[in-house]
Amino acid sequence: MSSTATMFFEFASTYSYIAAMRAPSAAAEAGVTLRHRPFLLGPVFAALNGVASSPFTTQPLRGRYMWRDMERLCEKHGLAFRKPSTFPRGSLVAARVACLGEGDAWLPSFVQSVYVASFAEDRDIADAGVVKELLESLRLDASAILEAASTQPVKDRLRAHTDEAIRIGIFGAPTFVVGEELFWGQDRMDDALAFAARSSDAR
Amino acid sequence: MSSTATMFFEFASTYSYIAAMRAPSAAAEAGVTLRHRPFLLGPVFAALNGVASSPFTTQPLRGRYMWRDMERLCEKHGLAFRKPSTFPRGSLVAARVACLGEGDAWLPSFVQSVYVASFAEDRDIADAGVVKELLESLRLDASAILEAASTQPVKDRLRAHTDEAIRIGIFGAPTFVVGEELFWGQDRMDDALAFAARSSDAR
Repeated sequence: MSSTATMFFEFASTYSYIAAMRAPSAAAEAGVTLRHRPFLLGPVFAALNGVASSPFTTQPLRGRYMWRDMERLCEKHGLAFRKPSTFPRGSLVAARVACLGEGDAWLPSFVQSVYVASFAEDRDIADAGVVKELLESLRLDASAILEAASTQPVKDRLRAHTDEAIRIGIFGAPTFVVGEELFWGQDRMDDALAFAARSSDAR
Repeated sequence: MSSTATMFFEFASTYSYIAAMRAPSAAAEAGVTLRHRPFLLGPVFAALNGVASSPFTTQPLRGRYMWRDMERLCEKHGLAFRKPSTFPRGSLVAARVACLGEGDAWLPSFVQSVYVASFAEDRDIADAGVVKELLESLRLDASAILEAASTQPVKDRLRAHTDEAIRIGIFGAPTFVVGEELFWGQDRMDDALAFAARSSDAR
């Protein structure tokens, strides 16, 4: 029986881009089931620091480092990268669509298309029109999906994911959750998958 | 001609333990000259946040995560680990001894012995008597070294290293510096060494 790793991700998060692009194939290779879990970092930062802002905007030094780090990491992993003209970008529409798509086969591709739009093509993913185009490019019924994604049950699901993130002690994105264990950062993804694979073997 | 990577480290820093244990052999394997550069994080945090405290003590959530992360990483790298009964520990005496030893053959071993004492054996490295025992265990003239390490030129050197760290934009430890590039964290060590090796090839 395969073990599961849950990837908590936020579309505004730079390092989540790298994780989202690499996770599906890395999980398959490790024999681990990958579950995508969209959430919002704003409420998490607010619960942690009293301010809903990213440390990359409140601490310019860390912001500058992060952009250079992203350039180097994307080059290392063969991912296109262009520093977005706006940061962070509003992720609410895309996150709700991702909540709607949980468990559906199109979700991983949609997630990757949003990240590529934001971090490789400098497109404004906060704009529902851009999200619609991304859904259309995946040959999905974009209008129906966007309408369903704006209903109360989907809004509630995103809020529940964010509350869950706060409850289990998540403080940044991406975070991989395997059982009770948290693995924070794209640089812990391989460790998380190996941990999940070992947990599965031990059963 | 070999390229150089400079490891800025702080004896109070947990993740610097992993870097200090792994860096000498990893650098040798990469064909890169490793330079140890002790500094103090307190003034760096004060310059960054206005408070000289570690985020691991001001944010308990991040502190708890860090300890579990350290356990897992030490297990992964085959390093002994015991959560210190005091954190962070005063690093001034050991850092001054490390400044004195810069360029000397005994420095990497001394650095490792301090980290092992603090993070594997729960010994109080803030105590000059403990530092003296560590120097003696390396068959060094402990009294002479401790006396020389408390002279003004050595104090000034540690201050200069800390000022340099702030000037070049360091915000945490360990940080590897290769030319103008910063690589923050033990999880960027291999990237830093690969970068240094490539820079050397390109000459």
